[in-house]
Formats: sequence, structure tokens, C-alpha cells
Amino acid sequence: MSKMATNNQPAPSPLLPTIDSPDDLRRLAPEQLPQVCAELRQFLINSLSTNPGHFASSMGAVELTVALHYVFNTPYDRIVWDVGHQAYGHKVLTGRRDNFNQNRKLGGLSGFPNPDESVYDTFAAGHASNSISAALGMAVASKLNHDSPRRNVVAVIGDASISGGLAFEGINNAANTPNNLLIVLNDNDMSIDRNVGSLNSYLAHITTSKTYNNLRYKAYKALRKLKLISDNGKGSIMRFNNSLKSLLSHQQNIFEGLNIRYFGPFDGHDLPTIIRVLNDIRDMEGPRILHLRTVKGKGYEPAEKDPAVWHAPGRFDVSTGNRLEKAPTDNQPIKYQDVFGNTLLELAKNNDNIVAITAAMLSGTSTATMQREMPDRVFDVGISEGHAVTFAGGLAKEGKQPFVAIYSSFLQRAYDHIIHDVALHRQRVTFCIDRAGLVGEDGPTHHGAFDLAYLRTIPNMTVAAPRNEHMLRHLLFTAQAENCGPLAIRYPRGKGRIADWKCEMHTLPIGKGEKLREGKDLAILSIGTIADQVNEAISRAETEGISVAHYDMIFLKPLDEEILSEVADRHLNIITIEDGTVNGGLGSAVAEWLEDNNIKDITLTRLGLPDKFIPQGTPAQLAELCGIDSESIYKAIRSASKPNVQQR
Amino acid sequence: MSKMATNNQPAPSPLLPTIDSPDDLRRLAPEQLPQVCAELRQFLINSLSTNPGHFASSMGAVELTVALHYVFNTPYDRIVWDVGHQAYGHKVLTGRRDNFNQNRKLGGLSGFPNPDESVYDTFAAGHASNSISAALGMAVASKLNHDSPRRNVVAVIGDASISGGLAFEGINNAANTPNNLLIVLNDNDMSIDRNVGSLNSYLAHITTSKTYNNLRYKAYKALRKLKLISDNGKGSIMRFNNSLKSLLSHQQNIFEGLNIRYFGPFDGHDLPTIIRVLNDIRDMEGPRILHLRTVKGKGYEPAEKDPAVWHAPGRFDVSTGNRLEKAPTDNQPIKYQDVFGNTLLELAKNNDNIVAITAAMLSGTSTATMQREMPDRVFDVGISEGHAVTFAGGLAKEGKQPFVAIYSSFLQRAYDHIIHDVALHRQRVTFCIDRAGLVGEDGPTHHGAFDLAYLRTIPNMTVAAPRNEHMLRHLLFTAQAENCGPLAIRYPRGKGRIADWKCEMHTLPIGKGEKLREGKDLAILSIGTIADQVNEAISRAETEGISVAHYDMIFLKPLDEEILSEVADRHLNIITIEDGTVNGGLGSAVAEWLEDNNIKDITLTRLGLPDKFIPQGTPAQLAELCGIDSESIYKAIRSASKPNVQQR
Repeated sequence: MSKMATNNQPAPSPLLPTIDSPDDLRRLAPEQLPQVCAELRQFLINSLSTNPGHFASSMGAVELTVALHYVFNTPYDRIVWDVGHQAYGHKVLTGRRDNFNQNRKLGGLSGFPNPDESVYDTFAAGHASNSISAALGMAVASKLNHDSPRRNVVAVIGDASISGGLAFEGINNAANTPNNLLIVLNDNDMSIDRNVGSLNSYLAHITTSKTYNNLRYKAYKALRKLKLISDNGKGSIMRFNNSLKSLLSHQQNIFEGLNIRYFGPFDGHDLPTIIRVLNDIRDMEGPRILHLRTVKGKGYEPAEKDPAVWHAPGRFDVSTGNRLEKAPTDNQPIKYQDVFGNTLLELAKNNDNIVAITAAMLSGTSTATMQREMPDRVFDVGISEGHAVTFAGGLAKEGKQPFVAIYSSFLQRAYDHIIHDVALHRQRVTFCIDRAGLVGEDGPTHHGAFDLAYLRTIPNMTVAAPRNEHMLRHLLFTAQAENCGPLAIRYPRGKGRIADWKCEMHTLPIGKGEKLREGKDLAILSIGTIADQVNEAISRAETEGISVAHYDMIFLKPLDEEILSEVADRHLNIITIEDGTVNGGLGSAVAEWLEDNNIKDITLTRLGLPDKFIPQGTPAQLAELCGIDSESIYKAIRSASKPNVQQR
Repeated sequence: MSKMATNNQPAPSPLLPTIDSPDDLRRLAPEQLPQVCAELRQFLINSLSTNPGHFASSMGAVELTVALHYVFNTPYDRIVWDVGHQAYGHKVLTGRRDNFNQNRKLGGLSGFPNPDESVYDTFAAGHASNSISAALGMAVASKLNHDSPRRNVVAVIGDASISGGLAFEGINNAANTPNNLLIVLNDNDMSIDRNVGSLNSYLAHITTSKTYNNLRYKAYKALRKLKLISDNGKGSIMRFNNSLKSLLSHQQNIFEGLNIRYFGPFDGHDLPTIIRVLNDIRDMEGPRILHLRTVKGKGYEPAEKDPAVWHAPGRFDVSTGNRLEKAPTDNQPIKYQDVFGNTLLELAKNNDNIVAITAAMLSGTSTATMQREMPDRVFDVGISEGHAVTFAGGLAKEGKQPFVAIYSSFLQRAYDHIIHDVALHRQRVTFCIDRAGLVGEDGPTHHGAFDLAYLRTIPNMTVAAPRNEHMLRHLLFTAQAENCGPLAIRYPRGKGRIADWKCEMHTLPIGKGEKLREGKDLAILSIGTIADQVNEAISRAETEGISVAHYDMIFLKPLDEEILSEVADRHLNIITIEDGTVNGGLGSAVAEWLEDNNIKDITLTRLGLPDKFIPQGTPAQLAELCGIDSESIYKAIRSASKPNVQQR
């Protein structure tokens, strides 16, 4: 691919440093673009090796990114990226090259397209499958606005994202609404893990025969020149494509079945071809799909070989391809995900009814651990959180015990399914809510901020959060030992603190909290792993003579009213703390309880995430920003205990 | 169709009264079934003419219902109905004939399949598109359970429901998971209004040529007898179908594209054929789709002619087909829906940026009013609430002002889309949340119970509810006059109380409530149309010398802290009331505010929907059940004002 550049320019001067916006890119000759691609790839490799991020997806989209900004008049034309993992190259080419070392850092660049950051970022892209619907909205608006010159809108969606129900709804609607939307299907046959689902095997099935595609493409251009087909009649090229296909192939094409013109598949790394095709189809009327085959991790051999691992590899040595993340040793705490994965397998060995469900996150949630040993009892349903939950409802109806492992912010997609297909008839489904609370560098679209608040309002739900790895194990054990209907267990991203995590398991009483520490000046009620920060803060306060009781509520719902009564009897000051939105979670539940019980002598301080979208940053930075780090808790203790301190 | 029965039995004795369970049905000879269908239809006509319900869908599914219970061994075999509108016949045949006059009544039958009501009702079916996912769960569970004899699972889904993203996710997953699921597509080319979307035009496109289908079906059976194809090799019949199709037709079949065996389309009212086909495909291995063409309202001429109106026609005269609902006269209040529809059109005439979006509810939400005059600016996206919201986000991004009209309980499907695609970047989208609060006879799946609670926790949202038709108009006016980012306006099902609803409109200040009545003994804070019941209760209390202040908060978020301060200064007792879940809504917000501001001299009483799923019944019955009717409010006033009364 780079031979065109090297043939003409034996020692080319670097081009990437001269590209401060797509305008600069568009000033280049087509022959110079492969060099831009090569430099962009090297830039990404160098940058991501030291400042970790999503690697393999963006590597696979380099040619596509260059071609789109070369052919389309961005930012006037709109590119809508589906899941920003692909969009690092886009960020580098749109004026953010010099800031790219601040990618995913507090105050730096968002790891995903972010309209607040750049005019080139047209829409939020943290949750999969939304690009077609959003881009359709833009395309329809542009028609209604009579934008002149015509404004092109392009949605770039991966083959994993397109399996989400939202993408299907978007396609279904795009085909029947007047619009000129171009959908680019960036098909690398991977999401984070290898892709699943019928649509995916279908895509894998579509012929990659260049003969067929070239023939069809040439025939189309020839007929168009002869004005035998035109772009205006919506059905004309459809019919042309379909009939040519019927002659040449027995393949089904679901996109054409859905009335969207289909072009492809083409090699997504063949830059001249992509540019030629994009130029040809750019100004066509009506919705159309361009199908590109790409290789995740393209251009960096270790990533091409193992794209799942290189989805977000952490730091690495560029020359060797060695990842610099330390492997955990036997005597170190492991990730909550791995505690979950190992424990689930352990339980499943003794309970035939346990099945596990994940939505495209086998490795992320560590359901892979059970899947390796019991492939028949683990279901990776692809990016389809709603289906995952309703499917679990069906399994539960027939006596299975589904454990549904989904990231907190993605589970928002299944809110109605939790209510209607699980909670309404008290189906015994265990929601293993991963990445709850602040997730750090992935930022506002990925923080698990709302789960406590929205789950608490659903009737029949039991909602719990373990304070440590042992409690996670006990809660999982309880979930399969006791039928309490739908049960949510939420736990954070990342490592715990207990090296010896593999304890004996036992049942926990539903709705019962635990007193962790006696104290007389005030009481702290916490839920989840933030108990650690509370503990630190209390220990520090104790050195100053402030005595603080600490209760782990364990369950947000049902709320342990015995603990609340005890606390209300003994204390005048209560602090609640949670790593979820302060509106509607534990603090709200306690406020409601105090008011409902007409308890008037207590001062309540509610700590939690503020009513804002929280940016990206390290978890520690963000905890500080939200006032839920141990320093903030310590200050809240000091402030709440002042009258008491003064009395001494 | 009834000729088979009448030919052999000149004066047949009625069969339906002898059918107390599907076992009784299965004892009949096939020749008797058309008579059962005719009697079942007549039963539904008679019953629904006096006790209103969903009429046309169930009429269209009569033969299918009889055939399914005849061929399958229910309840051992599972039938999962998608949206219970189709399932009245199923209820009548499964032991609920004599209770059917209690359909949709408090303490009577649920209007939808309800697993708590009957073992034949396998899953909740109030929200569309969930049947495939739920049935897949059951089918997979049955395989894992090694059920013997084999347990068949059938999902029955309409062509409108199948356009929902959840159904697509289910199909996509069904094709790649070991299971024997049978999906019956009941295709009447209607949802409630006429169907939209590309999949739908695709379905309409599939040839109904009997020649082709019969040929294919016969060829399949012949080849199977010759053992040239078998049921075990997953791909065999697929290949057979596809190649035969390639010979006979140039049609694309997206189901086969997705790797699901496809049979049809067949005439869904041709009972002998359906039974024959169901028998043939019943025991096949692997997922398969049977496509039936049916007529909504079949067998009752007025309903066949105008199936949208006859979706839920209210009471009617059987012989004339006249609907007995009174037409509103000029001097009567109209439905909130019509106030919304008319006002939106009025505003759109003066504001070119206004566009409207509905998800298959053009008539239900009255967006049809604007659509008739401005078809280019109204988008019915079909059953796809998630897409509706994300699409609105895209439109808003380009300067349009989308008004998204969706029923409260269906909007739950779009919870994540509201957060990620609208609220995160403060897109100016107005959510017109219809059917908020208690909807009455449709029951637990349809009550708009959770919207206030879940919207309040989303950053950047403004959440409002009008107390009457004028306020609805002012809020809609405000939405298009002031950019306050995402704004939710929730209003109830049914008629208002103001005959002269068409007032001059003006802007309301965001986050400002209104004092409706002065009073000194206590204060009531309400939101929404429940202000009427509050008013009644206060008037009654006043006759007993209790003086009650009444504030309409109008906005749940931002909360009017000036009102709260005023109330806190002047009163010792506050009652909050809302027709949403008491966990997380207005009462919670006020409790939080009191605690956060350390106000200790006030007794708060929070009225609202309890933390339970509320059954079906009349709105008045349910309000009483939930303690939010005027009698309950009156009692709360008495109780809260007791100390004050005693002081007099």
C-alpha cells in the first residue's frame, strides 16, 4: 500500500505534522495518502504504547478515516462514528494531534467522539449501535433545512455494533424515510471478543470475490453512463443489483432485502479503491450501505494476531509487542471481574441450573472463565443487552438460574426489559452488574452512575453491592441458594484489596447490613467497595479523637431498617456514601426513611456522585472530583462531628 | 371456511361451551374446528361489544389460536404471545371463558397474558417484541433440562412487533444458539396504525403466490420422504429453500439470510393448511419461522374495513357495527392527547423547526393531527422507541426541535437513549410522555409509574407535568420558545376537565411552580393533573375548618426551591402527591431537600404509587387502591392537620 508513496518520493518529508485539519489533508495529492496512513499508524502505535487506550479498532480504520475526510467536506459533512474505539485516527486528523497524549486523561481528550470537544465529533459514541439512528436524524434534518450545498452524512458502524437492535431499528427506518444517509459497515469480524450472532455469520458469508464485486461495480458505472439507470429512482439500482446478483450468485443480501442499496464488500485497506467508491457513491440519492472488510489491529503484527487482547492492551513495548501490564501473582488481589468469573464457575459446578449470559463481553466480564469449561451453559448474545435480559427471563421461567453479566452503563439499554420481562413476574434472574460506579478513563458514557437509583424504583427488585471480594462471593452464593426473585449485585471495575479472595462461601440474609465498626460521635452508612475509603477516613478521624460508627448496608433494597433504627437511636449525625448518583440512591432512601418515620433529631449528609455527567480521568481523580474519596469523607466526618468535638 | 362443519352437521350443537381447556379442544375431530373458530369469533364479538377491549387483533388470530392449541400439547408445550392483543381467543380456550366478562377489570382477568393468572400464559406480553427472546430462553432451558418428551416452544409475533430491535436481537441470537424454537409471524400488515418501516414493506413484498409456496412445500415434503433432505442437518432445508427460490423467484428472504428456516407465507385463516403445516414442522430441529398472512378484525366486516379504529373500539352495537362511544361536542373537554396533537400543529405552523416523532402510535398520541397537515415533518418510526429517541437526538443536533411522543411505559425502552443520545450533550429534545400515571384497564405493563423517578436522576434533564390542558399548552409553547436542553412533559391518558382548552399560550419560567391556594394549617405540593383531586380534597377539608395551602410544582426538576423555602417557613406539615412511584419522585426530592437543608420542624407525608406493580382496573379504582384519590388525600389532610385542629 505504501509503494505508491515510496516510488515517487524516495525520502518523503513527514506529512502528518502538516495536517492540522481535514482541509490540510484534502490539499494533498491522492498519491500522498498512503504515506499519511503509514504515518498515522505509526503515530497511534507510538502514542498508545505509552498512553494506553483502544488500540486495535483504530488501527483497522486508518484507511477508512483518511478516505472519509479526503472525500467528504468535514465538518460541513457529518461523520458519525459508532463506538469511538475506531475514531483515534479521526481525532489526530482533526486538530487534536498535539493533544493526543492527553487522550482519556482528566481535562484532556475524551476517548470517544465528543461534540463538546470538537466540531468534527458529531455525536456521542460510547454505547454501541446508535450511529445509524443519530445520522439518520442529521440527514433528515439536512433535507428539511434545505442545506445548500447538500450536506452529506455518514454513519460508520462496526459489524458488532450493527447486530444491536438499535442499529436494526435505524436501518429499518432509514429505508423508508427520505434521506441520503451513507452507512459504512466497517466489518472486522470482531467486537471486542470474536463476534457472535446470525447477522455476523451472514456477513462472514457474503462473498469477498473481487470478480463479482468489480463486475457489478463496473456494470453499474457503465449502465449509469448510458443513463440506463439513474440515481433518482430509488428502486432502480436496487433492481439492478438484485437482478445482477441473481444472475451471478445465490447469495441473499439482507440489506437489499431491507431496501437499502448495498455496495461491497471491498477491502477496507485498499485506499485507492475506497476513495474511488466513496467518490462514486457520495452524491447518490437515498440511503446506501458500503461494506468494507478490515483487519482489527491492521499494520501492527501482534495486534493482528490477537485482536481481542489488543482491543485495549495497556502500555506496550513497540519493538517487541510485549505488553507491559504486570501479570498478577498468587499472593495479589485480582480483579473483581475475575473473582466473579471464578466464583461463578465454582458455583456452576455444584448447581446444574446456573447459566451465564453476557452481551459481547466474555473477557471483559470474565464469563469466559465459565465458558471455557461449560460452553453449553454460557451464552454470549452479542451487543444486545435488552435481549440478554429478556432471554434470561425465559430461561428463569423454565427453572434455570441465569446470571446476567453486563456493564452498568450498558445495562441502561435493558431498563424496560428488567421491569417488564423479569421484575413484573419476579423471575429469578441475577444481574451481575460490572463496571458499577466510576470507571475512570472511559468517561461519562461508561460510568456506572445510575444503576442504584433506577433499580431501587423497580418493584420486586433486590439490590446489593459487596464491599469486598469475599462479600461478592457470598452474594453470588446467596443468589443461587435463595430465591429472592430478581437480584442485582453491582461491583466495580478493577482490582480488589484481598489477596486471599477465595474464602468459603455462605448465605447472606437478604436485606441485612453489617456493623463494621462501633463509634459514638456519628455514623456512616455505606454501600459497596467505597467502604474501603470510609475505613481510611474513619481511621484518620480516630487519631483526632473522633469516634465514628460504620455500617455496610450491603443491600440498598430492601433497606435494613433495623440498622437505620439503631443508628437513629444512637446518633445525631449520619453520613451516607455511595459511588452512584446522589439523586435516588442510598442517600435518598435514607432521607425518605427519616422523613417517613418522622425522625427529626438527625442531621443527614449525603455523599455520592453529583447530578452531572462525570468526565474521564483516573478513578482516584474522579473520586476526588465527586467528593467521595477518603479525604472528602474525612472532611465530611470533621464537619459533621464539629459540635461533638467542641463538646469534648 | 365454515362449510366443512355445516356440510356434515346440519344443526351442530355448540362446541365452545364444552371446551374448558385445550385438552377438550384436542379431543375434537379436525372437521369440527372451523365450527369452534366461528363460535369463538362470535363469542369475542358479543363479549367485547359490551365489555370493551382489544378487538381486531384477536379476531385475526382465531384460526391460529385454535390450530396452536390443537397441534401443540399446551401447557406442556409453551406458547409465548407477543403483545397480548392477539391472545383473547387463547384466554377463552384455556379455561377463562366464563371469566372473560371480567376481562380488564379490577380483580378480573388481565388484558394480556399473565403468568400469575394461568399456566397457559407463559410470559408477560404488554410491551412489544419480547416474545422471541423470552421463548428462546424457554427453548434453550428445555434443551438444557433434557425435557422428555421434547417440549416445544412457539413465539407468536406480529409484523409490527417484529420490527422492534429486541425482536431482531432475538432472531439474530436464535439462529446461532441450539434450540427448536418455532416463530410464528402473524402478519396482518398493521400494528395499531398501519405499519411502517422497511421490514414491513419487505414483508408486504414477499410473494403470496400459492403456486410458489405450494410447489416449494410439496417439493420439500417429497424430498424429505426420499431422505434427500433431513431435519437434522441445520443447513439442509435452508439450502433447499434458497436454491428453489433462486430458481423460482428473485425475492430476497432476510430470514433465510439470517439462517432461520422459513415457511410461508400461508393464509392464516386457512385452518386445515395451518394445522397441516404446524404438524409437519412441529418436530423439526432448529429454529424456524412460519409466516402467516392474516386480516386484522377478520370475520367482522366493520373491523376488517377499518382495523385501526377497531384495534380497541370501545363498546359497539353488534348488528350495526356502530361504536357507542360518544363523540365529543364543542363544549366538552377533550383528551389530553388531542390537546397535545392540536397544540403541536398550532406551534408547528409558526415554527418551522418543529418536527414530531412517534413510535407506531400516530392515533394513540394524536401526532396524526400534525401528520395530516405536515406529513414531511412527522415521523412514525414504528415500534422502536430507542431509535425514536436517538433519531430525535440527531435531528436536534442539526437545529430541528423534535417533539417525541411516546407512552410513558414504552419510553422505558429508551432509557439509555435518553441518557446517552440526548441528555449527555444537552440535545434540545422535548419528550411528550403520554399515558403517564395510572392508565387503568391495560394494567401493570402499561401504567406510567416510573418516568418521574427515572428521569429525575438523569443530569441535564428538565422534567415537568401540567396540572391541566392550559398548562400542557404553555409547557409545549415553552419547549419550543426556550432552549432548556432535554425537556420531558408528562401527561395522562384520557380527558381533561376544561371545555375551553384552547387558551392563548405563553412561556413558563423553567423550574418555577405556582401557588394555587393559600392556607395555614398545612401545605400540599403536587405535580401534574392530580392537582384536581387535591383541590377536591382541600375544598372538603375547608368545610371542616382546615385551611390547606396548595402548590403546583409544575417542574420536578429543577425543583422550585423558593416554594420549598416558603412552605418550610410557613408550615409544620407538608404532603407531597404524585401519580408516579413514591420511590424516587417528587416526594423523594422534597425529602432530600429537607434533609440536605437540615430542616427539622416539618412532618412530611409522601403520597404516590406504592412500590408494587399496580393491577388493571378503572383509573378511579386504582387511584383509591394506591391512596391517591381525593378521599385518600382528604384523609391525609385530616391526619396531618390533627395537632392544628386540636389547637383551635
